[in-house]
Amino acid sequence: MTPLQSSLSHPVLAPLNVPERLLLGPGPSNVHPTVLQAMNTPPLGHLDPAFLALMDEIQVLLRYVWQTKNPLTLAVSGTGTAAMEATLANVIEPGDGVVVGVSGYFGNRLVDMAGRYGAEVHTLTRPWGQVFSLSELRTAVETHRPQVLALVHAETSTGARQPLDGVGDLCREFGCLLLVDTVTSLGGVPIHLDDWGVDLAYSCSQKGLACPPGASPFTLSPRAWEKLQQRQTKVANWYLDMNLLSQYWGPERVYHHTAPINMYYALREALRLIAEEGIEQCWRRHQQNADYLWQELEALGLSLHVQREYRLPTLTTVRIPEGVDGKAVAKRLLLEQSIEIGNGLGELAGKVWRIGLMGFNSRPESVDRLISALKTLV
Amino acid sequence: MTPLQSSLSHPVLAPLNVPERLLLGPGPSNVHPTVLQAMNTPPLGHLDPAFLALMDEIQVLLRYVWQTKNPLTLAVSGTGTAAMEATLANVIEPGDGVVVGVSGYFGNRLVDMAGRYGAEVHTLTRPWGQVFSLSELRTAVETHRPQVLALVHAETSTGARQPLDGVGDLCREFGCLLLVDTVTSLGGVPIHLDDWGVDLAYSCSQKGLACPPGASPFTLSPRAWEKLQQRQTKVANWYLDMNLLSQYWGPERVYHHTAPINMYYALREALRLIAEEGIEQCWRRHQQNADYLWQELEALGLSLHVQREYRLPTLTTVRIPEGVDGKAVAKRLLLEQSIEIGNGLGELAGKVWRIGLMGFNSRPESVDRLISALKTLV
Repeated sequence: MTPLQSSLSHPVLAPLNVPERLLLGPGPSNVHPTVLQAMNTPPLGHLDPAFLALMDEIQVLLRYVWQTKNPLTLAVSGTGTAAMEATLANVIEPGDGVVVGVSGYFGNRLVDMAGRYGAEVHTLTRPWGQVFSLSELRTAVETHRPQVLALVHAETSTGARQPLDGVGDLCREFGCLLLVDTVTSLGGVPIHLDDWGVDLAYSCSQKGLACPPGASPFTLSPRAWEKLQQRQTKVANWYLDMNLLSQYWGPERVYHHTAPINMYYALREALRLIAEEGIEQCWRRHQQNADYLWQELEALGLSLHVQREYRLPTLTTVRIPEGVDGKAVAKRLLLEQSIEIGNGLGELAGKVWRIGLMGFNSRPESVDRLISALKTLV
Repeated sequence: MTPLQSSLSHPVLAPLNVPERLLLGPGPSNVHPTVLQAMNTPPLGHLDPAFLALMDEIQVLLRYVWQTKNPLTLAVSGTGTAAMEATLANVIEPGDGVVVGVSGYFGNRLVDMAGRYGAEVHTLTRPWGQVFSLSELRTAVETHRPQVLALVHAETSTGARQPLDGVGDLCREFGCLLLVDTVTSLGGVPIHLDDWGVDLAYSCSQKGLACPPGASPFTLSPRAWEKLQQRQTKVANWYLDMNLLSQYWGPERVYHHTAPINMYYALREALRLIAEEGIEQCWRRHQQNADYLWQELEALGLSLHVQREYRLPTLTTVRIPEGVDGKAVAKRLLLEQSIEIGNGLGELAGKVWRIGLMGFNSRPESVDRLISALKTLV
């Protein structure tokens, strides 16, 4: 074969043409038009002074939405799962004890990931959709004396919100780090990372922040940084090693990887719009629209899976009525009405639908469109 | 503090406003307007049938540009470094021998990463900008009997192209896998993965493919898949575990992570445009424009670092003339003429500039604009 000859046939495709959806599943959500427009900005180099300035802005904005002063607050160059993995990869050394609260799919994912980094994992379990009490958490920490306690603040698979008051103090009392999943809470549910004493948190861009997926918030407290500095082994994950990433995001500006430039544009704009609205107003808006959704769903005779006190405003699990084929309804909603909602996962597969009202989609119009479509199908 | 009160001040920022650059560094490169426009398409859900169809298209197109029939050919949800890490993470088990050819920055990165996954790494070194002969490679493989031989086809830090003829046969003779970095070659330099017997390869989107960074080509041969299936330990990296990813990209469609939807739109369009041009024509165009660049640089009295035979058409290293402050010239090019070129890394820091002509930027106009700017500065 001559070097310039292709041996595979030449695929011929039409230009991109995708349907418009109202995304009311567990995420991605629809994106603010200004944010989408930012994606369409020509890329800069990853060491261009203009891009480095934008990275600094992202850091300031992320600290604001998370309510933290952590110096090491940045975006990971992947989706939320990469940011999740970044928290565990950096602080776990082989043999470290990790207690994980599992009452949904993402708790289980933390267990699997932590094990891959060599942790001795102890799980605390609850039926999917419930939360852990402070005294249960105290017993677990007292018993296992872990290096890390990992909890899911907003369980995307169940719609439950884990209360975090007092958990940070408990972790300090026993010298362990508190790691929290805020994937489905950031931007839509009140979070006060520093007041709560959270040491490691991660999130995603495509839910409460109303940005496409692809650049994911990560933060680490000075206590967690200290544990990272005391490691006896290298972080097993090069791409997510905060020793290296902190030198790119910090004043040294040492090249680490090529950032997903346009994703950072979008994230910057998404965060800027939240700061413009005000984070408190953004939380309030999510709660008001969720209240409206819950009222309308109940008016349809549907019942909600999570007890009101622990219900997330961003993601609602709705019990599928007896005799209804839940998957078929979701499919018809998508294909006939172009509305996406989520099916249940794991313990809740076939039992619930998952309805997200997040970011740009947290509006009464989203509720109205969904409810009128549901009326024709359920 | 009441739960709805923010304790951090409210950052106020102006809308996004970034300068336009001609990106002639080592990447990112400028993006085809059609590809940039695709970024501005509203996201679909990551399990939407329309999105799953697009993932299938990406697979077909990636096989074409790489000239491979590997079933497991997909995009990793991160930048090129994540795809690089994916190759090592999946096939290396603690204690495995890995021989890495190092004659530039990215060879060293492979060494660092492989070590983090527990490999016993043997390095084969050469001055930066040179390549390895088949007989040197044979000696190394005979001596160390590694599980993996890792080579950089296109060394982004030096502009050298490693010949790969016969290397696949050598690896088969000794029962080892051949892993190849094609970050700066895919789309711009002839690659025949299957004919060469390459088992694992990775690339990026922001160079020869003319797409923004953020979704990165990855492929793995049936031989490498077999090694993955025979692992005694879990892949240490959950986000990049091909056992899991292959179930999302394959017919099972098991949820793994939320893909960076808009990045996949862009990658699909970038690959579609290459297929429309024809991969052979794309290779030819890169070579012609590189020839023109080399001629014009030499006409300016500049000398090129890599011997012509091994020079990459996508990335050229130019020796900084005696007495010229290379970094200052690059900075003036950027700030006064809005043209980005790269500085040297590692052994070549302060000694060369790196000039990329990749993807959409591989055009005579790019050369003309750069040369006339350089004339005023050097």
